[in-house]
Amino acid sequence: MMKIKKRRKPNKASNLPPGTISYKGKKFSDVTTVEIINYSIDSYTKLDSKNVEDAFNFKETNQVTWINVNGLNATENIEKLGLHYHLHPLTLEDVVDTTHRPKIDEFEDYLFIVFKMLYFKDDGVLNYEQVSMVVGESYVLTFQEADGDVFDELRERISNAKGRIRSQGSDYLMYAILDAVVDNYMSVIEDFGDRIEDLETDVFASESNGSTPSQIQGLKREILKIRRSIFPFREIINRLEKSECKIIDIKTRSYLRDLYDHTIQVSETIDLYREMIWSIMDMYMTLISNKMNEVMKVLTIIATIFIPLTFIAGVYGMNFNNMPELHYKYGYYVVWAVMIVLFILMLIYFRRKRWL
Amino acid sequence: MMKIKKRRKPNKASNLPPGTISYKGKKFSDVTTVEIINYSIDSYTKLDSKNVEDAFNFKETNQVTWINVNGLNATENIEKLGLHYHLHPLTLEDVVDTTHRPKIDEFEDYLFIVFKMLYFKDDGVLNYEQVSMVVGESYVLTFQEADGDVFDELRERISNAKGRIRSQGSDYLMYAILDAVVDNYMSVIEDFGDRIEDLETDVFASESNGSTPSQIQGLKREILKIRRSIFPFREIINRLEKSECKIIDIKTRSYLRDLYDHTIQVSETIDLYREMIWSIMDMYMTLISNKMNEVMKVLTIIATIFIPLTFIAGVYGMNFNNMPELHYKYGYYVVWAVMIVLFILMLIYFRRKRWL
Amino acid sequence: MMKIKKRRKPNKASNLPPGTISYKGKKFSDVTTVEIINYSIDSYTKLDSKNVEDAFNFKETNQVTWINVNGLNATENIEKLGLHYHLHPLTLEDVVDTTHRPKIDEFEDYLFIVFKMLYFKDDGVLNYEQVSMVVGESYVLTFQEADGDVFDELRERISNAKGRIRSQGSDYLMYAILDAVVDNYMSVIEDFGDRIEDLETDVFASESNGSTPSQIQGLKREILKIRRSIFPFREIINRLEKSECKIIDIKTRSYLRDLYDHTIQVSETIDLYREMIWSIMDMYMTLISNKMNEVMKVLTIIATIFIPLTFIAGVYGMNFNNMPELHYKYGYYVVWAVMIVLFILMLIYFRRKRWL
Amino acid sequence: MMKIKKRRKPNKASNLPPGTISYKGKKFSDVTTVEIINYSIDSYTKLDSKNVEDAFNFKETNQVTWINVNGLNATENIEKLGLHYHLHPLTLEDVVDTTHRPKIDEFEDYLFIVFKMLYFKDDGVLNYEQVSMVVGESYVLTFQEADGDVFDELRERISNAKGRIRSQGSDYLMYAILDAVVDNYMSVIEDFGDRIEDLETDVFASESNGSTPSQIQGLKREILKIRRSIFPFREIINRLEKSECKIIDIKTRSYLRDLYDHTIQVSETIDLYREMIWSIMDMYMTLISNKMNEVMKVLTIIATIFIPLTFIAGVYGMNFNNMPELHYKYGYYVVWAVMIVLFILMLIYFRRKRWL
Amino acid sequence: MMKIKKRRKPNKASNLPPGTISYKGKKFSDVTTVEIINYSIDSYTKLDSKNVEDAFNFKETNQVTWINVNGLNATENIEKLGLHYHLHPLTLEDVVDTTHRPKIDEFEDYLFIVFKMLYFKDDGVLNYEQVSMVVGESYVLTFQEADGDVFDELRERISNAKGRIRSQGSDYLMYAILDAVVDNYMSVIEDFGDRIEDLETDVFASESNGSTPSQIQGLKREILKIRRSIFPFREIINRLEKSECKIIDIKTRSYLRDLYDHTIQVSETIDLYREMIWSIMDMYMTLISNKMNEVMKVLTIIATIFIPLTFIAGVYGMNFNNMPELHYKYGYYVVWAVMIVLFILMLIYFRRKRWL
Ligand SMILES: [Mg+2]
Ligand SMILES: [Mg+2]
Ligand SMILES: [Mg+2]
Ligand SMILES: [Mg+2]
Ligand SMILES: [Mg+2]
Ligand SMILES: [Mg+2]
Ligand SMILES: [Mg+2]
Ligand SMILES: [Mg+2]
Ligand SMILES: [Mg+2]
Ligand SMILES: [Mg+2]
Ligand SMILES: [Mg+2]
Ligand SMILES: [Mg+2]
Ligand SMILES: [Mg+2]
Ligand SMILES: [Mg+2]
Ligand SMILES: [Mg+2]
Ligand SMILES: [Mg+2]
Ligand SMILES: [Mg+2]
Ligand SMILES: [Mg+2]
Ligand SMILES: [Mg+2]
Ligand SMILES: [Mg+2]
Ligand SMILES: [Mg+2]
Ligand SMILES: [Mg+2]
Ligand SMILES: [Mg+2]
Ligand SMILES: [Mg+2]
Ligand SMILES: [Mg+2]
Ligand SMILES: [Mg+2]
Ligand SMILES: [Mg+2]
Ligand SMILES: [Mg+2]
Ligand SMILES: [Mg+2]
Ligand SMILES: [Mg+2]
Ligand SMILES: [Mg+2]
Repeated sequence: MMKIKKRRKPNKASNLPPGTISYKGKKFSDVTTVEIINYSIDSYTKLDSKNVEDAFNFKETNQVTWINVNGLNATENIEKLGLHYHLHPLTLEDVVDTTHRPKIDEFEDYLFIVFKMLYFKDDGVLNYEQVSMVVGESYVLTFQEADGDVFDELRERISNAKGRIRSQGSDYLMYAILDAVVDNYMSVIEDFGDRIEDLETDVFASESNGSTPSQIQGLKREILKIRRSIFPFREIINRLEKSECKIIDIKTRSYLRDLYDHTIQVSETIDLYREMIWSIMDMYMTLISNKMNEVMKVLTIIATIFIPLTFIAGVYGMNFNNMPELHYKYGYYVVWAVMIVLFILMLIYFRRKRWL
Repeated sequence: MMKIKKRRKPNKASNLPPGTISYKGKKFSDVTTVEIINYSIDSYTKLDSKNVEDAFNFKETNQVTWINVNGLNATENIEKLGLHYHLHPLTLEDVVDTTHRPKIDEFEDYLFIVFKMLYFKDDGVLNYEQVSMVVGESYVLTFQEADGDVFDELRERISNAKGRIRSQGSDYLMYAILDAVVDNYMSVIEDFGDRIEDLETDVFASESNGSTPSQIQGLKREILKIRRSIFPFREIINRLEKSECKIIDIKTRSYLRDLYDHTIQVSETIDLYREMIWSIMDMYMTLISNKMNEVMKVLTIIATIFIPLTFIAGVYGMNFNNMPELHYKYGYYVVWAVMIVLFILMLIYFRRKRWL
Repeated sequence: MMKIKKRRKPNKASNLPPGTISYKGKKFSDVTTVEIINYSIDSYTKLDSKNVEDAFNFKETNQVTWINVNGLNATENIEKLGLHYHLHPLTLEDVVDTTHRPKIDEFEDYLFIVFKMLYFKDDGVLNYEQVSMVVGESYVLTFQEADGDVFDELRERISNAKGRIRSQGSDYLMYAILDAVVDNYMSVIEDFGDRIEDLETDVFASESNGSTPSQIQGLKREILKIRRSIFPFREIINRLEKSECKIIDIKTRSYLRDLYDHTIQVSETIDLYREMIWSIMDMYMTLISNKMNEVMKVLTIIATIFIPLTFIAGVYGMNFNNMPELHYKYGYYVVWAVMIVLFILMLIYFRRKRWL
Repeated sequence: MMKIKKRRKPNKASNLPPGTISYKGKKFSDVTTVEIINYSIDSYTKLDSKNVEDAFNFKETNQVTWINVNGLNATENIEKLGLHYHLHPLTLEDVVDTTHRPKIDEFEDYLFIVFKMLYFKDDGVLNYEQVSMVVGESYVLTFQEADGDVFDELRERISNAKGRIRSQGSDYLMYAILDAVVDNYMSVIEDFGDRIEDLETDVFASESNGSTPSQIQGLKREILKIRRSIFPFREIINRLEKSECKIIDIKTRSYLRDLYDHTIQVSETIDLYREMIWSIMDMYMTLISNKMNEVMKVLTIIATIFIPLTFIAGVYGMNFNNMPELHYKYGYYVVWAVMIVLFILMLIYFRRKRWL
Repeated sequence: MMKIKKRRKPNKASNLPPGTISYKGKKFSDVTTVEIINYSIDSYTKLDSKNVEDAFNFKETNQVTWINVNGLNATENIEKLGLHYHLHPLTLEDVVDTTHRPKIDEFEDYLFIVFKMLYFKDDGVLNYEQVSMVVGESYVLTFQEADGDVFDELRERISNAKGRIRSQGSDYLMYAILDAVVDNYMSVIEDFGDRIEDLETDVFASESNGSTPSQIQGLKREILKIRRSIFPFREIINRLEKSECKIIDIKTRSYLRDLYDHTIQVSETIDLYREMIWSIMDMYMTLISNKMNEVMKVLTIIATIFIPLTFIAGVYGMNFNNMPELHYKYGYYVVWAVMIVLFILMLIYFRRKRWL
């Protein structure tokens, strides 16, 4: 029947040989910044650099090194890190593919996790940013698309030695990063809940206007998109908790289980909101039908009452020579009487039908 | 397309380090009360206190100690209990997070269960209250958001030595508490069933009015909310029954299986009611369409009959000098005859179409 | 938003201590009757009594004893049976709870099965009755809410030694009872199929009237209710067939597998009918829309033709002194010609739009 | 609420003792014919008889014997076969129950398969016929409700020694029979696909008429019925492939796997068509709404334009003595001007609203 | 009720004996071309031929041989390959059946994979082509329906020794082929995403016209068809990754896992788009209802205002001799006043109802 025709150029990059490191995604920023945090229970160093090699001095110590790369255009930085930490070519390919589905891969000596970070930027716009994380025995690498993230509070905890983070290994740092991400999912979702409640209140207050359907559709789209970013995350945390990888300490597992609880809660909340949006949509349709019914009733009542009366008036407006009623003395009053009786009968009829 | 913008401040508490004990939730009450019940087959003590340390004397005995804390603001009480009973920091964090999803965690020497207690308060308002429960070898700790619960009948059974509770251990007390909760789920659900049947009767009796859609929507929302509180509970009981934890006696398992039956029944009933609400919604839509159809038929019949007749009257109301019909002796009567014939033909037509 | 308020008293019974034997359900009958059938391959005794202790003489023989209790108000009979056959308190509690979900429990020396028996009473009304059954090595106990059941043909087979029942043990009797129940499910379901086909025929023959939606809703409700009674039964038969309980002979398993086939067929038929009801509902909505469309077309055609014509007549009914057309000799005929042309153009227009 | 009342007599047969051989189903034909084909790689005999005992001479040979029974009324034939081949009573009961759900049972020395054969008869009517098949080490028994089947091509292959059938055992014959059945499913399904495409084309070409909803409903019903016949078949083939029954040769398993592929394809195609029918239904509803909208626009435009104009004409048709406008020289022309301006303004308004 | 009648001739081919090699499908091209690529890390040969036997010289070397056959009509080529590489008759049957469902079969010394290749041809039309692939220890055979595929970039990589392909075995070639296919799925899907967004924008901009429903239906159909081609592919890759077949090297498994990620992403994207299409459909229906409501309001306002006024004018257009109002000096002005007051009251009423 319909012939499907191509609309767009196929993504050139998609035909590169497997393992090619080629940045896919919007160019968030040209500048790449590297942030290196190195800590143990009694030491702490922080270094902001443009050169990833500054981090390599820290490697042989038994401290934890967190290297955070902001900006994926400068693929040479990523290649250097890949070489230094012996990362698989497919890992590097995935790091720079910002359209990747959230996932976890277990390699022999590191874990590789890709996920989406959702947060409201300073201007209040919801931001979807892909983060990939490599977790080794004594280091954590994170790759972000651009500056700005949800880890500021975590950085502060590390520098101020708040909580138990400084006394733990790289697996706990991984947990802390993921925990910050999930906490932000929750706050994004709660913002959605407020929107949905406002919409529901509007629809019920009959203050819905022409823009209501597009607001509902917008929320549907957005919830589908968020769902798609967050749902695979649940599976990632589940696999982390179950993983027998030696990098993850037995004590950290309790924390991962707690994190899993939260991701379950996040995804159940998403599904709840989704169902609520559909339900509001149904309600909106019902209310439109109800209003249409009311409009029709008004029209029908008025038309049904006056059309016959107008007909009667029309009859006695005819100009036939021979129309005896016209000459009766009380003809006019009789006609009025008939019309008033008809009017009252109509009212009774509509009252019986509960239209009035 | 649409840009999602932040509406609310993110929950500050969500960025605290893991394991922080910080009360989340509505401040139900400022006062914290502690109720301590200590019993064995032949002894019974009850103590109401504000100080949780009063309970610690009971600990070393081989009796069962039930410590019930009402009100979660005074986190120092919770911390003292945590210290005394060696609870994990994440357990304490979950106790004070009243937005937590129902769940069960098995620790080495205690079980930790979080669930929602649903009950009608004295003023008849449905109340959702989070309860967390720690079950150890010889003690049960319960934490409630505020005074008032569904355990009064259970307290009476303990003090009067009714049933088998006084001869059993802490696992049976846990069962008895959960059983009371499930029994209340059932009675809340039955109340819903009544509401749904009333609504259905109203809709069918065509006594639905403008508020019907909002009633339906209200029930939908509420059933979604209840469902969300109760469904995870099913999994909790299932895991309890299957658990190989040494705290749960073999004899208690039969009781847990029975409890599981009841939670299955509760959740199936919820799903039944949910389907019934959707079905009533559909029915309401159909009835509106039916009514609209009837309204349209009335309008169409009246308009279709009288508009042509009015036209005829209009024709002979024209003032042309040369209109021979006007001067015919029986012109007026002929016109009436024509109009009556037309009227009858219309009636026959509508009768054929089954509109009359 | 909406505050949910309590409507009904909570079920008092629900707060009783676990294991309490307290009759829940409609009081079907005040009288309790006990029917005792004792048989082996070459013996047969039948006893109708009001006293359950009459059955205890039969216990030690290697015959099969079937004790059928009709009416659950006289809980003392049930307690005596429980004592005599060493039944668990929870079993007894479930026997008298007629709102129980169908289920199977395996105890050490008996099987306990709860199910719903559906059958048309003599007055043709569909009856839902809960039956609980205890199956021991040499006895079967059945508890019904009231007189009347679907086992008459089975009783006859036992007394006349028809089929293989007299040569088999208590497990085969259990099978025969369940088989009779499933056969009746099937005949209830087939009755539903007839109803649905009648409804479908009515809807298509446009003979649907105002009561059609309530008929559809009634069928939906009833199918939901039947489904809820029958679906757990499937799981019961499945577990019976898989059960490693020593009461069930290897030869009986073939019969249970056959029974399982039938329960699958019953539940698939239910789901088929359910889908058909929804489909008829959709069809009904479509037909209403179609009819409304037709009604609107009739109105539109008549109004669109005559309203302009009436306007023209109205123009020449005005009483201006200076209206030259009125004095033209053929003015009246010209107006008629114009109106007839307009009329024909309208007809052509509607024909083009396929409204005529 | 609504009381469900019995409509039909319960199926008498359903209360017979288990294992009774009593024909259920429409009486397809009174005559029973038996067709016996006996073959090995180098021999072939075919015998048409009315007496099933003619087949028993063939039993002890190491050839393959295929006994096909058409017509199930003569239950004595079935009983004789059952006796000769040592079939379980439940097998015989299922053979004559033509309402049986498709299934497979593995007995110690034979496989028993029940399935539905779908094919177009010579008059083009779709036929559902139940076939049951018993597969032993050296024989295959098939029982059909009436003459006529889909195995003619297979019979020809056997008699002409085409393909590998003559060199294989009874398991390959079973496969060949099932393969013929599945091939016919596919061709029935493809016929459905054509119907659905025709319907879709009609609906889009706006050539849908009053019969469209009943056509859609008819396809829905039929697809539900076909689905119900075919879906259990998938499970049968899967269990055959996985079966460890010694009758099935290792080499035949590849063929069964291939057959499984085809049944998957058949059932996916059914589900695709099902979704397409629903989608066409939705589309039909949308098109009705669109048409109704257009009808309403025509009515609204005409009425909205002429009703005010008619009012103006009505005003100057009044017969008051003192109506100065009537005596103005250009009153009539001014009124016409006013009406024309109003008319044009209305057109502009409708154009703005995109209704014209 | 409705009798289903045959419409089409059953597919003759479907009744052939199993294992028959008979081409099913549209005849893409009459010409069969064979392309033979033979490579190792330091050698490369390419041969275009019409004769498949040219490839057999390469067989015994420890290089990788890729034989690509375009066009399936010349079944003798396929039979020769089957003979040379010892392929099972069912494999050959499946190769030429272009309506086959995507699947994987593991044979003793080769893997057999059937899948659909989706790509936009040079003229921009979406093309569904079946490809079957046989993967042996040192060879890969691919069978396409016609010239043209998505492997050009892969051929270039082999000839130019780009990436790691030249240093790997036949399993990596298999991976590279499947990877190219999945990359094209993604680009086809992205094209769909653009279409859907355009449609959504149109619907919201109220620029939808009569063709919108058929566009939506077209997208629905197409997405169902694509889904059906792609979904089984996911299972194929999963089984490949899990397979213990000795042909697949341990190092290739990482690549297959990466490929699996991409197929998951493809199928999740399809489901997202599917949900979006349904959502747009719903939105379109809502917007139609909204528009209809607006149309009805305009009609109702105009009719409700002018019908009563016209009635009043009609009354004073009657010709009774005795109508005192007509002779009052200010009768005409009083009537105008009454009509204006009525008009204003109506406006106030509609304003209150928020219709204006
Ligand atoms: Mg690629
Ligand atoms: Mg990707
Ligand atoms: Mg960032
Ligand atoms: Mg957290
Ligand atoms: Mg994630
Ligand atoms: Mg927690
Ligand atoms: Mg936190
Ligand atoms: Mg939480
Ligand atoms: Mg409380
Ligand atoms: Mg209970
Ligand atoms: Mg119970
Ligand atoms: Mg719907
Ligand atoms: Mg209780
Ligand atoms: Mg109970
Ligand atoms: Mg129940
Ligand atoms: Mg009874
Ligand atoms: Mg039976
Ligand atoms: Mg059977
Ligand atoms: Mg049977
Ligand atoms: Mg029976
Ligand atoms: Mg059956
Ligand atoms: Mg036949
Ligand atoms: Mg086949
Ligand atoms: Mg095949
Ligand atoms: Mg296939
Ligand atoms: Mg075939
Ligand atoms: Mg095949
Ligand atoms: Mg295909
Ligand atoms: Mg090709
Ligand atoms: Mg790839
Ligand atoms: Mg990848």
